[in-house]
Amino acid sequence: MYLEKINKENDIKRIAPEHYDELAQEIRRFLIEKISRTGGHLGSNLGVVELTMALHLSLTLPEDKIIFDVGHQSYTHKLLTGRKDDFDGLRTYGGLSGFPKRRESNCDPFETGHSSTSISAGLGLVKARDLAGKNHTVVSVIGDGALTGGMALEALNNAGKLESNFIIILNDNNMSISENVGGISKYLRSIRTAESYQNFKIGLEDFLLKNLPKSGEKTVDILKRFKSSFKQLVVPGMLFEDFGVTYLGPVDGHDIKAMARMFREAKKIKHAVLIHVCTKKGKGYPPAERHPARFHGTGPFDIETGLPENKSGQPSYTDVFATVMIKLAARNDKIVAITAAMPDGTGLKRFRNIYPDRFFDVGIAEEHAVTFAAGLAAGGMRPVVAVYSSFLQRAYDQILHDVCIQNLPVIFCIDRAGIVGADGETHQGVFDLSYLSSIPNMHIMAPKNKWELSDMIKFASEVPIPVAIRYPRSDAYDGLKEFRKPIEYGRSEMIYDEEDIALFAVGSMVRTAEEVRAGLKSQGLSCSLINARFVKPIDEEAISIAAEKHRLIVTMEENVLSGGYGEKVLDYAGRARLSAKVMNIALPDEYVEHGNPGVLKRVMKVDGEGITARILSELNYMENSGK
Amino acid sequence: MYLEKINKENDIKRIAPEHYDELAQEIRRFLIEKISRTGGHLGSNLGVVELTMALHLSLTLPEDKIIFDVGHQSYTHKLLTGRKDDFDGLRTYGGLSGFPKRRESNCDPFETGHSSTSISAGLGLVKARDLAGKNHTVVSVIGDGALTGGMALEALNNAGKLESNFIIILNDNNMSISENVGGISKYLRSIRTAESYQNFKIGLEDFLLKNLPKSGEKTVDILKRFKSSFKQLVVPGMLFEDFGVTYLGPVDGHDIKAMARMFREAKKIKHAVLIHVCTKKGKGYPPAERHPARFHGTGPFDIETGLPENKSGQPSYTDVFATVMIKLAARNDKIVAITAAMPDGTGLKRFRNIYPDRFFDVGIAEEHAVTFAAGLAAGGMRPVVAVYSSFLQRAYDQILHDVCIQNLPVIFCIDRAGIVGADGETHQGVFDLSYLSSIPNMHIMAPKNKWELSDMIKFASEVPIPVAIRYPRSDAYDGLKEFRKPIEYGRSEMIYDEEDIALFAVGSMVRTAEEVRAGLKSQGLSCSLINARFVKPIDEEAISIAAEKHRLIVTMEENVLSGGYGEKVLDYAGRARLSAKVMNIALPDEYVEHGNPGVLKRVMKVDGEGITARILSELNYMENSGK
Repeated sequence: MYLEKINKENDIKRIAPEHYDELAQEIRRFLIEKISRTGGHLGSNLGVVELTMALHLSLTLPEDKIIFDVGHQSYTHKLLTGRKDDFDGLRTYGGLSGFPKRRESNCDPFETGHSSTSISAGLGLVKARDLAGKNHTVVSVIGDGALTGGMALEALNNAGKLESNFIIILNDNNMSISENVGGISKYLRSIRTAESYQNFKIGLEDFLLKNLPKSGEKTVDILKRFKSSFKQLVVPGMLFEDFGVTYLGPVDGHDIKAMARMFREAKKIKHAVLIHVCTKKGKGYPPAERHPARFHGTGPFDIETGLPENKSGQPSYTDVFATVMIKLAARNDKIVAITAAMPDGTGLKRFRNIYPDRFFDVGIAEEHAVTFAAGLAAGGMRPVVAVYSSFLQRAYDQILHDVCIQNLPVIFCIDRAGIVGADGETHQGVFDLSYLSSIPNMHIMAPKNKWELSDMIKFASEVPIPVAIRYPRSDAYDGLKEFRKPIEYGRSEMIYDEEDIALFAVGSMVRTAEEVRAGLKSQGLSCSLINARFVKPIDEEAISIAAEKHRLIVTMEENVLSGGYGEKVLDYAGRARLSAKVMNIALPDEYVEHGNPGVLKRVMKVDGEGITARILSELNYMENSGK
Repeated sequence: MYLEKINKENDIKRIAPEHYDELAQEIRRFLIEKISRTGGHLGSNLGVVELTMALHLSLTLPEDKIIFDVGHQSYTHKLLTGRKDDFDGLRTYGGLSGFPKRRESNCDPFETGHSSTSISAGLGLVKARDLAGKNHTVVSVIGDGALTGGMALEALNNAGKLESNFIIILNDNNMSISENVGGISKYLRSIRTAESYQNFKIGLEDFLLKNLPKSGEKTVDILKRFKSSFKQLVVPGMLFEDFGVTYLGPVDGHDIKAMARMFREAKKIKHAVLIHVCTKKGKGYPPAERHPARFHGTGPFDIETGLPENKSGQPSYTDVFATVMIKLAARNDKIVAITAAMPDGTGLKRFRNIYPDRFFDVGIAEEHAVTFAAGLAAGGMRPVVAVYSSFLQRAYDQILHDVCIQNLPVIFCIDRAGIVGADGETHQGVFDLSYLSSIPNMHIMAPKNKWELSDMIKFASEVPIPVAIRYPRSDAYDGLKEFRKPIEYGRSEMIYDEEDIALFAVGSMVRTAEEVRAGLKSQGLSCSLINARFVKPIDEEAISIAAEKHRLIVTMEENVLSGGYGEKVLDYAGRARLSAKVMNIALPDEYVEHGNPGVLKRVMKVDGEGITARILSELNYMENSGK
């Protein structure tokens, strides 16, 4: 009814205030209905329906700028800016992104994906505005979880000295993806749960003014201090005030009028102002309210029951990791586990339940996570950092500077490595082999199947060096079970030993290489398949041997070419003056958008069929040129 | 006199308290005398003489652990742990490091170099201690500047939930390298400058207890809140308390007994405690007190006058950058400049003086710096981020995620790229070509001499893409002045066009390549020299042409091999099926310790002589094998 009337930005202003609640309900129904079919981020989006409406009512787009931290909560914003009809293609290849995208709308002023960037970006837009002499409003919407990320705090520290308007909305739902941790979280909870201070503010102030001694400089001083101290009583956000940022709130994040009123007030303030908005994740959909972690990011589900559709019976690599960690911890009491706000996503929740004292959730704080692990290792422990590939990018310097210079035995279990799919550019785990390879003392492995992941984690726990193991977001491959040679330092594993063409495949690409091999054999070609196992160091001996009886060595990896496995093999082949030609299959030097991983791989020609065709074409050239 | 008696850890405890001041003076004289000859970090070390003494008096080493954040202030610690005699070789190859090193002493439990890591590492050591059932003390010493780094705040947030002892010393000298910025800094200043609250604490509390209404639950509640609010009056460190960390102080950082007393108290507290210690950078040496930035890191100087010895008359690359920025800003009002606490080191101080509104010092906060720049660029500005190569590692994810996905025109001017010398492993700028190359949409350049740096910055300011320009810590090369072809996108520059061997050299390596070419020519060989200019994208056409008339292409870069320029050329040569052999000269896959850059390059065989020998050896092989 009312949603129909909103076809572009600012249309919401034509809705009469008495219909706001109905519109909010329509938006919720729309989101639940669409996401139940496409999958997507549900809980966070249901939580900010009213907040987004209040922002759109108080601002004028696209002149005013809203930056959504992490960005997966921007669905209502997309609905209110003319993208309603695109929701059927949400997160599919070529379709609507699940994150803000400048190419989609000029109402998306800055793209997000990883956590804790919005205050920094907002400050940049504010300074650009001021230097250009403009006066539009810039708003950054950041969750309480994202506020534990260091760069958000760096930005807050810088916001404190701002002398023009900048609105930071603290969307406080007391959750990252899982529950929040740490001092700031506890602090916010104390504000949320406190009774209203407003009632006795006036009474108490009166009392003090009447009763305090009135004469003498010292008394004035006391009174002044009291007033400032009083602020702590009546303005619970002293933490933010200490950073130099004006605090307003808390305000009910489902009360549109109250929020809109506060936003209007905030626009008048000539420095940075933080508005503490309390929302409920999953609001309005009982299954999502009850299971916030499960409905954070969800696949298609049944609206009635809230249960997922088509859940595969296969364990994922994440499940395998979780199981191995528990077994390993039972045998080795030095094993401890660290996650940055991802106990569910990384599978460590099960470890936490059994070994609560050896489990550390540090909040959204990858930098701290890695150096904390380095400290644990320096203290004699065997820390395992479980993290997504794209999020570990945040800790590049900590790996290089705190772990690897000291050669500390920290194990990185890197989930979501390779093409992850629906989350798109910001979440593809396609750089880890490159950024980790550049780091001296680092060792990198990738398993071909679920048994090998298990073997690799055990191996890593027994060597006194930094080790990274990367595996994809998918069901754990259960093929090639019969190939389970013990892991040996720096050694690859021969799967099929033939001649002519040798495929050296990394991790997930071993499975693809089986397809490629089948394709080549169907053309009458002979083809070896080697499971690389180690990306750093590479197995130079195996490559040398392969070069002797194959005319073409093909490397295959789900990572960008630059700095990856293939370049290392190519480099070695040159140094060792090998006669075989080396061909690298890797991802192109470009960002990979959202979509089904199978579709994306086909488009980039890194699926079985595409790679087979590329090899055949290379062989064809070699034959014609007589090489 | 007293310093003589200290030959290993804990010896200081045998000095009678009445001689502490004399010992402190001896240490100061020792440090000034040694550093005046070797160079090193002077100001910060003079500032923490008494603090370090108080720590050593209160702790038992090596059982207890002290982690010095950034670590360049650990000289007194080294003096007190048996390394006195090594100071003549400070920061020279094979000699004493200017930073904590585990290989030097078991009193150095964790190595540091970059800022803001010590609380994370300390928490790791604390947890390892607790899990092992031990009870030694762990102390992290962190400066107020380092506290603006995000990961320190992430760690503080995690320290808040700790339930065992951990001592954080806030060494507050109101300085990073230059003056501090932001809300936290202002907050700390307000504490430092406040009169003592202690005096009227008791009087006021008495008064309130007597005068507040005594009956009714609400009154009790008010009283309780008042008590807590009172804390804000009597404990000025409420910011830290809000993080969940107990605050003690401020205490005079030059009063050994007062500090030792407080450390003893702090050891009894069963959670994280922050002790606010106020010190003076450069304390006891007037020139360093007056010029804290100049004496942060200094070369040899005259003790009488404080003036540097042997200052080169040549402008450095930093100077050239500073000059160009000012010229550019005059012509283009979109140009703004950003530094992370390095207005002096990056040369932007001069820009700041002329364009204060277009200059942003964000504090030690590289992550924020980069995303803030992305925001400025999204708002229409042309931000230039001036940063040291090794510190930019902190912002890898921000470059990849916030700048390059959106293809925003941020310019990175990367100083201290390549071998930097005396600071050692943590500060060598030898990874930037690799980590930047892995990022789609990134463009990377390196100038051969001072005029080219100027041309490259101008070029970067005119193209709507992310650009990184890297240059070394050294006098700007003023040779090859006659070669100044206009910068063209993705194009190299031919310097000497001959045949047989083609040297493709990156940035600083062009100068080295001149030496190599002279060496080869003296052997009767013909040799072309090409200035690569662009590391990404590489100049494929020039490489193809070179391959036609040279039998050997040699790439030369001051960066690790993995993911650098050479591998890209090698990769292209393979894809393009070039006939010339490609040989890569780069740094080995290992950390480069401290020492004179010339010495280090000779040791690694990447100086002119070493490279010439390697090429001759390769030619020799090629001839013998008939290739």
